[in-house]
Amino acid sequence: MQKGIVHYGIGDSIDTYMYIKSSTKAVASNGKPFLTLILSDKTGEIEAKLWDVTEADERNYVGEKAVKIQGEIQNYRGRSQLKIRNIRLTTDLDSISISDLIQTAPLSQEEMLGSITQFIFEMRNPNIQRITRHLLKKYQADFLTFPAATKNHHEFMSGLAYHVVSMLDLAKAIGGLYPKLDKDLLYAGVILHDLGKVMELSGPVSTVYTVEGNLIGHISIMVNEIGKTADELGISGEESMILQHLVLSHHGKAEWGSPKPPLVREAEVLHYIDNIDAKINMMDRALEKAKPGEFTERVFALENRSFYKPQF
Amino acid sequence: MQKGIVHYGIGDSIDTYMYIKSSTKAVASNGKPFLTLILSDKTGEIEAKLWDVTEADERNYVGEKAVKIQGEIQNYRGRSQLKIRNIRLTTDLDSISISDLIQTAPLSQEEMLGSITQFIFEMRNPNIQRITRHLLKKYQADFLTFPAATKNHHEFMSGLAYHVVSMLDLAKAIGGLYPKLDKDLLYAGVILHDLGKVMELSGPVSTVYTVEGNLIGHISIMVNEIGKTADELGISGEESMILQHLVLSHHGKAEWGSPKPPLVREAEVLHYIDNIDAKINMMDRALEKAKPGEFTERVFALENRSFYKPQF
Amino acid sequence: MQKGIVHYGIGDSIDTYMYIKSSTKAVASNGKPFLTLILSDKTGEIEAKLWDVTEADERNYVGEKAVKIQGEIQNYRGRSQLKIRNIRLTTDLDSISISDLIQTAPLSQEEMLGSITQFIFEMRNPNIQRITRHLLKKYQADFLTFPAATKNHHEFMSGLAYHVVSMLDLAKAIGGLYPKLDKDLLYAGVILHDLGKVMELSGPVSTVYTVEGNLIGHISIMVNEIGKTADELGISGEESMILQHLVLSHHGKAEWGSPKPPLVREAEVLHYIDNIDAKINMMDRALEKAKPGEFTERVFALENRSFYKPQF
Amino acid sequence: MQKGIVHYGIGDSIDTYMYIKSSTKAVASNGKPFLTLILSDKTGEIEAKLWDVTEADERNYVGEKAVKIQGEIQNYRGRSQLKIRNIRLTTDLDSISISDLIQTAPLSQEEMLGSITQFIFEMRNPNIQRITRHLLKKYQADFLTFPAATKNHHEFMSGLAYHVVSMLDLAKAIGGLYPKLDKDLLYAGVILHDLGKVMELSGPVSTVYTVEGNLIGHISIMVNEIGKTADELGISGEESMILQHLVLSHHGKAEWGSPKPPLVREAEVLHYIDNIDAKINMMDRALEKAKPGEFTERVFALENRSFYKPQF
Amino acid sequence: MQKGIVHYGIGDSIDTYMYIKSSTKAVASNGKPFLTLILSDKTGEIEAKLWDVTEADERNYVGEKAVKIQGEIQNYRGRSQLKIRNIRLTTDLDSISISDLIQTAPLSQEEMLGSITQFIFEMRNPNIQRITRHLLKKYQADFLTFPAATKNHHEFMSGLAYHVVSMLDLAKAIGGLYPKLDKDLLYAGVILHDLGKVMELSGPVSTVYTVEGNLIGHISIMVNEIGKTADELGISGEESMILQHLVLSHHGKAEWGSPKPPLVREAEVLHYIDNIDAKINMMDRALEKAKPGEFTERVFALENRSFYKPQF
Amino acid sequence: MQKGIVHYGIGDSIDTYMYIKSSTKAVASNGKPFLTLILSDKTGEIEAKLWDVTEADERNYVGEKAVKIQGEIQNYRGRSQLKIRNIRLTTDLDSISISDLIQTAPLSQEEMLGSITQFIFEMRNPNIQRITRHLLKKYQADFLTFPAATKNHHEFMSGLAYHVVSMLDLAKAIGGLYPKLDKDLLYAGVILHDLGKVMELSGPVSTVYTVEGNLIGHISIMVNEIGKTADELGISGEESMILQHLVLSHHGKAEWGSPKPPLVREAEVLHYIDNIDAKINMMDRALEKAKPGEFTERVFALENRSFYKPQF
Repeated sequence: MQKGIVHYGIGDSIDTYMYIKSSTKAVASNGKPFLTLILSDKTGEIEAKLWDVTEADERNYVGEKAVKIQGEIQNYRGRSQLKIRNIRLTTDLDSISISDLIQTAPLSQEEMLGSITQFIFEMRNPNIQRITRHLLKKYQADFLTFPAATKNHHEFMSGLAYHVVSMLDLAKAIGGLYPKLDKDLLYAGVILHDLGKVMELSGPVSTVYTVEGNLIGHISIMVNEIGKTADELGISGEESMILQHLVLSHHGKAEWGSPKPPLVREAEVLHYIDNIDAKINMMDRALEKAKPGEFTERVFALENRSFYKPQF
Repeated sequence: MQKGIVHYGIGDSIDTYMYIKSSTKAVASNGKPFLTLILSDKTGEIEAKLWDVTEADERNYVGEKAVKIQGEIQNYRGRSQLKIRNIRLTTDLDSISISDLIQTAPLSQEEMLGSITQFIFEMRNPNIQRITRHLLKKYQADFLTFPAATKNHHEFMSGLAYHVVSMLDLAKAIGGLYPKLDKDLLYAGVILHDLGKVMELSGPVSTVYTVEGNLIGHISIMVNEIGKTADELGISGEESMILQHLVLSHHGKAEWGSPKPPLVREAEVLHYIDNIDAKINMMDRALEKAKPGEFTERVFALENRSFYKPQF
Repeated sequence: MQKGIVHYGIGDSIDTYMYIKSSTKAVASNGKPFLTLILSDKTGEIEAKLWDVTEADERNYVGEKAVKIQGEIQNYRGRSQLKIRNIRLTTDLDSISISDLIQTAPLSQEEMLGSITQFIFEMRNPNIQRITRHLLKKYQADFLTFPAATKNHHEFMSGLAYHVVSMLDLAKAIGGLYPKLDKDLLYAGVILHDLGKVMELSGPVSTVYTVEGNLIGHISIMVNEIGKTADELGISGEESMILQHLVLSHHGKAEWGSPKPPLVREAEVLHYIDNIDAKINMMDRALEKAKPGEFTERVFALENRSFYKPQF
Repeated sequence: MQKGIVHYGIGDSIDTYMYIKSSTKAVASNGKPFLTLILSDKTGEIEAKLWDVTEADERNYVGEKAVKIQGEIQNYRGRSQLKIRNIRLTTDLDSISISDLIQTAPLSQEEMLGSITQFIFEMRNPNIQRITRHLLKKYQADFLTFPAATKNHHEFMSGLAYHVVSMLDLAKAIGGLYPKLDKDLLYAGVILHDLGKVMELSGPVSTVYTVEGNLIGHISIMVNEIGKTADELGISGEESMILQHLVLSHHGKAEWGSPKPPLVREAEVLHYIDNIDAKINMMDRALEKAKPGEFTERVFALENRSFYKPQF
Repeated sequence: MQKGIVHYGIGDSIDTYMYIKSSTKAVASNGKPFLTLILSDKTGEIEAKLWDVTEADERNYVGEKAVKIQGEIQNYRGRSQLKIRNIRLTTDLDSISISDLIQTAPLSQEEMLGSITQFIFEMRNPNIQRITRHLLKKYQADFLTFPAATKNHHEFMSGLAYHVVSMLDLAKAIGGLYPKLDKDLLYAGVILHDLGKVMELSGPVSTVYTVEGNLIGHISIMVNEIGKTADELGISGEESMILQHLVLSHHGKAEWGSPKPPLVREAEVLHYIDNIDAKINMMDRALEKAKPGEFTERVFALENRSFYKPQF
Repeated sequence: MQKGIVHYGIGDSIDTYMYIKSSTKAVASNGKPFLTLILSDKTGEIEAKLWDVTEADERNYVGEKAVKIQGEIQNYRGRSQLKIRNIRLTTDLDSISISDLIQTAPLSQEEMLGSITQFIFEMRNPNIQRITRHLLKKYQADFLTFPAATKNHHEFMSGLAYHVVSMLDLAKAIGGLYPKLDKDLLYAGVILHDLGKVMELSGPVSTVYTVEGNLIGHISIMVNEIGKTADELGISGEESMILQHLVLSHHGKAEWGSPKPPLVREAEVLHYIDNIDAKINMMDRALEKAKPGEFTERVFALENRSFYKPQF
């Protein structure tokens, strides 16, 4: 991975291009307006403050813009924060495109689609295969570009597809070690489990929850889609109901948003696979920023733990 | 209400017709088989033990049969239990039909359907009205005969419709006092909230959970049905999503089975109305069996409380 | 309701009279003192900051004063905040009295007292009636002016009486639908349940907890008062104890401050009625500020939820 | 302590006098009635079964009778149970009185009253002293004979006073080590904290909860009594309110029945003292029955733990 | 797997050899003693009741004996129970040895030891390798024969080693997919994590907790052993502390017995691997007894869930 | 106790020497750096802000320095904060040494060591005595200077030893009142329970957690030490295991960091003694700053309660 924002430490100066993920105006304790910018490059993101902004600043420095920025990294309540010295919008002369600044999956969309297609091809149960293929095709464009979440893990462009590809590899490994597992079910569950995110979230970058996402949620959205697909394809076996159950239960517990706990073996294993891939992703990113012999920043979605990086 | 099984006390003898809701064979500590029967009449039910059963007994005294029975009420670990002295299957000579023995709603199916139809008629929003009318019509037959649950409250024939009628009256009263409430939404939410039970449960009497009921649940079943109905009727407004949300959230909290909490005013109020009608129903039935100055049996679904019946 | 502070949005300018509910001095990050004012008018309240205050400002702008104010509404961490441009104390020339600026119940004290008196008049049980009438009369003056709480719901002048009047109407509606409920008990429970607030809180406006309120609480205060009243009136029946139980248990659960859960039918229903009236009040006020198609601010006392206002 | 029922082990035969604390009829799996007796002597109690009882047995072997009994101790699901071989009511010829068979405090009522009186005598604050003395005197007879609970700890005759005496000694020791503690408050809190049990429970032996005990509870009963006493004695200082708070908060947390947590230093310490004395009492009794190198029976009120008795 | 006790259904007769894992005497409701036997063969175990036992029966049918048995499988409260018709101890004429009847791991001790040795051989960090090899060697004999638990999962002879071997395979697969994981740490963590069970439990069959197991627990026992081993081997680097942390934290949360949560990446992954292998083992065994289209018995250690076996 | 920082109130000016416990740089909302200093004297500590700092300020005002300071106490969000007007490092001319400014135990190290030695001398069980004496001697120097914690209670120099001395006195008092308690075990448990803090924490002042403290924790560190000591001294009895259990379980519950709950009587009592001494210490310090008739600041470690100081 090239050098980027996550590789700078407290006290470092930076002079680089970045992308404004979001911009929020507020009023400082001296009564003057300032902007809180979330800036990103391909390696990650950082919070920045732009003090004493003019009305022009407010109009210019809004979400989904690329900027040239100079400043230094400071410590603010135990987190890194960028103090901006100079900022300007990029122009054509900068020869920089937004796609150069947006964090995205380490695999190309073609590679990911190829991998997933192969898993579907290997399925033996035609009902499971047809439902999965139909739904993937229906939402393919968004599936390949959306993030897997607004924050915490795989919250970058194409993060959803990348999370699915990693989970499929893990499903294959576990399926090989525990041969009673139905691999078709497991692969279909992995591919469909978060597909409803393409309706729950607003888009590939700077994503927020849609009204439907807030009121219904990606789990119920997808359960409905599976039902409709089975109707459309004239599939009447039990497979459709079991796939709905896998999606319904993949958060594992009622208090985590699954109205039914996993009651089928592969549903339980799907929950583990989802969990492992998400959490290793979060730990890896936190540890990438820490030096051996140090603790990471606290990771909110991992019960606010700090992880230690051994010296050996 | 006519005199029935709930009106007898410890020590009373009975000689009456009853309906076998369920029958379970087990082996006593003396090594001989016995049957545990759940017997009901129109007023309620009681557990009974038939000791030292023959193979003929096992064949005869199974669920969904009517029997003539003599015995007496005893106390078993703080609960009433019927000790059977004599039992036989009914014959044509008894001039008794099963419908005479099954607990059912205090209103006729026609009365209940009439009442609900009137509420739908009063709706002003055509989208809400059409979805509600369509789904009620689609499942009307089962809706009018199914219980609202396998136990705890309204667990008798036509209990589902009766629960809905009581809730509609309550919705009307509350809607009158808090005029900002959208009565159309509230009525539609009441009518649809438990309609998925006709697929979650197996039938009007001696009901158990279906596989679909266990794996998907009545909430998600109905959310899917609303989505399909809106598609079929070509309704594209926000009403369909809001109705889905009302059904989805009517258990109030994730840990009670709602993947989203109520996020619309009428969804919150629907949850209250459901709760009040169910709980007053449970308290009324427990208190009916208690005398003034006494505490009721413990009511499991009310946090195992015993309720006191004042003397005045 | 006339136009007031709750009807302004982010960016709006205001030029109006307001009432200082509370004023707190603190030191800004530039080392200069500033005041955080809670300002209200008849429609609601807003937080405001007065920067770089002088000693005269500190003396002038304290709680329970009326001020003329100019400024604009800004967004501070997702909440509205008033940035003050000009502020001065009102003078006689302003022809404004504090009562014009204080949020108060939408019914007059006379209307509310008349309504409650009628409910007491309708009681049939003389013991319940005499205890209720005695206690209402004893604390009538404060009861008619106090708020129902320091925040969350009915936290305005006469909010306590208004909450009681709404609950009585709800009690009457529910009592009509579930005829086994003892309406006398229910009405008395409603009237007495929060009456201890007149000792728990310090006064009708800018109210805070008293020492007795903190150490004993309105529930135990009122339970004691009922016991004393029964003694004084020579009432020896069970009614006094049951009324004490209704007050004692009206928060529903030990962890919500009721040392006993409701163990009498009407105590359980009283808890529902209190809950419904308080929560609909909170939702109504949050939704009043939101536009169709938007979510409200988070409501802390409703598990921090944001509510959606449908577009139809 | 003389040899008694707690000193017998599995397999031992006994031939002794015992007291019937309670007797419950039920029906065995062979259809015959039997009695479950809780039998006690001065050292403790044991459950016993009397099989195949006649109607005369049912009339004779009821609560609060003394019996001569022969049988042997058996293991029933990990607990000791007495299998009765012979049982008869005692007669005058047995020269045994019920007081010989009832477990009671190891100190006489006179000793305990003397000790408590001395603590009251030592109080320096006249308001605290007068309230405490008045209430002790008012309920002295019951206070000296009632148990402290129906089960778990100090559930024997005069257990309430004995618990108070032990706690006073502990309060004195702790008060000596932490001199900022107000000993008057601490002693008064100890003496009054459970005094409401004389109204919560039905009597000195075979005690059950009264209706008032169930609906109001000993904490609220005593808070009321302190308020009334202060009124009667014309005490207007803060002491009465603080004493009410000590009683109100002595269970420590809302979920344990205290509507307010301890908010005064001595209230917090009172909670510790109550806890320590009760729990050491429970551990001592469980460990008395265990041999070195063994674990005790599970103690329900100590989170169901088994305690180990070291071998040294 | 050969046909055995887990393959019989309700109503089946059996005539076979079995091993008595435990035998408990109790008294039936007719006053006669009976034995509750836990009988096992290589496929699993079943509870059996032997009624009306003689003193000779009590002496003969104790734990760790082989018996010839005839009887039939019955339903007792939703669980299978064996009703014994005939039972006798085996003699030399039966040509059956206890090892034929004890459930054991599907791999031989040699195979398992070979596999684990290979994993240790592959380690690159000499400190981790030496500590792991030393401890495995020290406790090798018990490690190869002990179960992994007294119940729930891998509770058969050599279950501990088998659990470790399965986890090592899983660790290798996951380590391959997430290359930042330190495989040495992961393998050592897997091998050591439950090694303390050889001191926590009493032996390879009919195992119970030792006093040390109850008071200290396998986690703390092993943490101590690692510390002592590092001292003995003169290893002073950070590896010893990190290995202690992996063992200390492998239950994942304080409330599950780990005084520290995982704070090192491999500690977190070790917790997942342990969890997955244990839970798939439990689901596999429950599902083995169920037919397609049915639910399994409830599995206590999986939150008491019943799992559904799909029909396809 | 001499007058010090805890005795000043809001609005008071101070001109005194203080010790910098810690210094953290951050950036104010005007973009300029400032320092947050935790300043202490013998009576306690206070937070202070130094605005607009120069690079020289940053170099000078770091942890573990003594300073001369002038400023005034202000209210910041309900807590006291020192606004610095003048600050300078102390010089030899000030005739002040750091030990004059560091909060330390009210007893000298010699007094505390003498007291503890006497308790060890009184032990009768030679195994307990030898293990305790050995470990105290091994870590004596650090034990006498370390604090008991980084915050909450006894977080001053020699706080660990002072906490132990207070607990020993309490253990003696309780041991006298409940004679079945094994005083040797209790004393040894008190002396050893927190001794692992000398490895968990970094030093006597400005203490932070070590890596070993974070990953292993003082409980497991000490359990290991006891095991090693018993090995070294050749002590083979049960005492070593029981002492390990006392240390292991002294936090009382798994969720508070004890992998086993107390399962030995003295372990349970050790937990109470630790709790009482810590909590009375916290209450005393909070109440010292409050006036009669007022509530204290909220005490985080006491469930965030504010305590009331009665007026009598």
